[in-house]
Amino acid sequence: MDKIEQILSFIVEIEKLKDVHRKTRPVGLERYENSAEHSWHVCLTALMLKDHANEPVDIDRVIKMLLIHDLGEIDAGDTIIYQSETAGNKAAEAAGVARILGLLPDGKGNEYLTLWHEFEAGETADSRYARAIDRVPPLLHNLHSDGHSWRENRVPKEKVFALNARIGQGSQALWETIRARLEEAVDRGVLK
Amino acid sequence: MDKIEQILSFIVEIEKLKDVHRKTRPVGLERYENSAEHSWHVCLTALMLKDHANEPVDIDRVIKMLLIHDLGEIDAGDTIIYQSETAGNKAAEAAGVARILGLLPDGKGNEYLTLWHEFEAGETADSRYARAIDRVPPLLHNLHSDGHSWRENRVPKEKVFALNARIGQGSQALWETIRARLEEAVDRGVLK
Ligand SMILES: [Ca+2]
Repeated sequence: MDKIEQILSFIVEIEKLKDVHRKTRPVGLERYENSAEHSWHVCLTALMLKDHANEPVDIDRVIKMLLIHDLGEIDAGDTIIYQSETAGNKAAEAAGVARILGLLPDGKGNEYLTLWHEFEAGETADSRYARAIDRVPPLLHNLHSDGHSWRENRVPKEKVFALNARIGQGSQALWETIRARLEEAVDRGVLK
Repeated sequence: MDKIEQILSFIVEIEKLKDVHRKTRPVGLERYENSAEHSWHVCLTALMLKDHANEPVDIDRVIKMLLIHDLGEIDAGDTIIYQSETAGNKAAEAAGVARILGLLPDGKGNEYLTLWHEFEAGETADSRYARAIDRVPPLLHNLHSDGHSWRENRVPKEKVFALNARIGQGSQALWETIRARLEEAVDRGVLK
């Protein structure tokens, strides 16, 4: 198969991410979100909030990270974050992303596999910011629609505050804004 | 409203793109594609095919173009490309994208509005390539699923070849690969 044909096969393969369903509903929609549209949403979220990152970030690298960050879910499925950060789930996602990026010609996928591992480790300025941004849309979904996913998945407020505090590692200003909204949600009885 | 709050409102507003339905079905899915997941898909398509562009392109600008290229559809709706390139439809999309980017603080949206107009005009290397890429996934959808959208929308082969020849302006090599597949589809009786 020639190189362009190989890349076209990759493009068809990654399309499966449009059928990986997440645990929140986009604002105004009845259906659950899929991981492909989520990936687009976090790219624009990152781009528009970049001036509020704690440290200087290379936004072009951040966007590439976010474009690929969920590819492993094609094989591993989506797991709600409050339960997903287990060794088994992470290993399944790592194997999935390696398989998918391995479809590209000339080892072209290696660069992106490295970027994926950087995102997962969260130990660089770019990945701390990208991981902060990844949390924003699902919180907005809950905040705008009565905490539906917290309720359906029985996520208590302690977990919501503890896990999302990582937003502050990427952008303290953003975390302060979101934390205030979460506190309002507690006051409204939406987050318990 | 403070700046972060304004950006969060923008992020919720653009989410409406997840409810704009296109005219093709992703490979393997029964439902129609939405413009948000399409936007993600074309970004990765552009990234992985960049070495096959006719001219050197700034892939980071191309990706930003593709992230925002359909935002105008939130107000204007999606129209199949074989009928969408009319002055009225373009004006509605331009007004929509200006409204949406205008939600951002500090005139931050102006840079992206300029980029959107560059994409629409298609007169630079980056926009020629981005516009070529935008055509690829819907053609793959048709090629992998019996030309469903050509049939449903009564698009004759002459129109398919004529409109998609623009792929060659961004990547001649890509157009040759895709044209060969379209010719096969004609031979199979899928494209008439
Ligand atoms: Ca369009």
